[in-house]
Amino acid sequence: MPKKKVLEEEKIANDAIDLFAEKGYAATSIRDIANSLKVSSSLLYYYFKNKEELLFTILEAIGEELLHTIDKEKNKAGEPLEVMRGMILGHIRLVQKTNNRAKLFVEEQHNLSKKYLETISRQHRNIYDLYVDQLKKLREAGIISNDSLSVTAFAIIGMIMWSYRWYRKGGSLSVEDMGNQLIETFFYGIVKNRERKAGNLPEMQFAANR
Amino acid sequence: MPKKKVLEEEKIANDAIDLFAEKGYAATSIRDIANSLKVSSSLLYYYFKNKEELLFTILEAIGEELLHTIDKEKNKAGEPLEVMRGMILGHIRLVQKTNNRAKLFVEEQHNLSKKYLETISRQHRNIYDLYVDQLKKLREAGIISNDSLSVTAFAIIGMIMWSYRWYRKGGSLSVEDMGNQLIETFFYGIVKNRERKAGNLPEMQFAANR
Repeated sequence: MPKKKVLEEEKIANDAIDLFAEKGYAATSIRDIANSLKVSSSLLYYYFKNKEELLFTILEAIGEELLHTIDKEKNKAGEPLEVMRGMILGHIRLVQKTNNRAKLFVEEQHNLSKKYLETISRQHRNIYDLYVDQLKKLREAGIISNDSLSVTAFAIIGMIMWSYRWYRKGGSLSVEDMGNQLIETFFYGIVKNRERKAGNLPEMQFAANR
Repeated sequence: MPKKKVLEEEKIANDAIDLFAEKGYAATSIRDIANSLKVSSSLLYYYFKNKEELLFTILEAIGEELLHTIDKEKNKAGEPLEVMRGMILGHIRLVQKTNNRAKLFVEEQHNLSKKYLETISRQHRNIYDLYVDQLKKLREAGIISNDSLSVTAFAIIGMIMWSYRWYRKGGSLSVEDMGNQLIETFFYGIVKNRERKAGNLPEMQFAANR
């Protein structure tokens, strides 16, 4: 694809992200986006077949970015628990940096039809796999308990992703402080000086996000 | 309101919940719901002014149910940590019992206009307040560390609410087992036999969900 076309697509996508996040995907038309960009709707249809393809382009891009960021941290040298810390912190930083896009990644995914949804679900699945794989290393090293790795992986992904809903920049708490506290909670729990019970739950199959 | 009207409204809402969850709020019309119920659209308009009012009715009901369930557990007698366990487990059970509705409560809220959204945001805020209040008791009793209670409350709410996205009934893991593992992770962390670092982060203001 010519470079110019890619650049135009990015500009359109960025504008659409803000409108989708503000008004919701359903209530935002291609015409709204065209008006906001001060171009004609037909120009937008030159870049995107329809509104759904535009949403898919946005979600796929954030999915890719999340995946690459977490994977890059995972491949750094270091103690397995420190590597896990890097993965979580990288994930949280990106969710916060791309706040509107992370919101769309969670809340608007269900508007995609099957073909597109499969790609986004695969990205969610790949992110989950990166965490499970790192948890396996932690278990093999005897660092974490014998609990179900699926539940553990979803626990941390839930904690991280939920932050787009409540964390606001510019308050008394920096992204780093917030991230570090989530990591401390996940690693060591909220209860002071107690040993945790050993668990031994069955693993479960990954279910694609609906 | 006459009892019959309430019953009819419930029937319509239940049907709408499944359609909204399956196709998404945006792609589901009042006509789709009428067809599914085998009644005319005009009958639906007798019960609900429009599709938005129907969505609001659904979300407000699940919000109320979550709030009452958590509050009831919070008011039970017992050690503060056991009370917290009851709150979390009650919350998880309800999210799983009402899976489709919990999904709508998270993903379709942004389709509501300001007036309706304020009510739903207040419910989210009230749920948060219940957790923060119980965390205060735990802190006063010297059971938990000095971390920001806001981050801690959102950590557990995130873990719980995210479960509608991945947990599937009928697998190898029961809701109780899944819930208990999330609680163990939240209370004691994933790392075996380590003392957690003491934290002392500033509190932050609650930001209404966008």
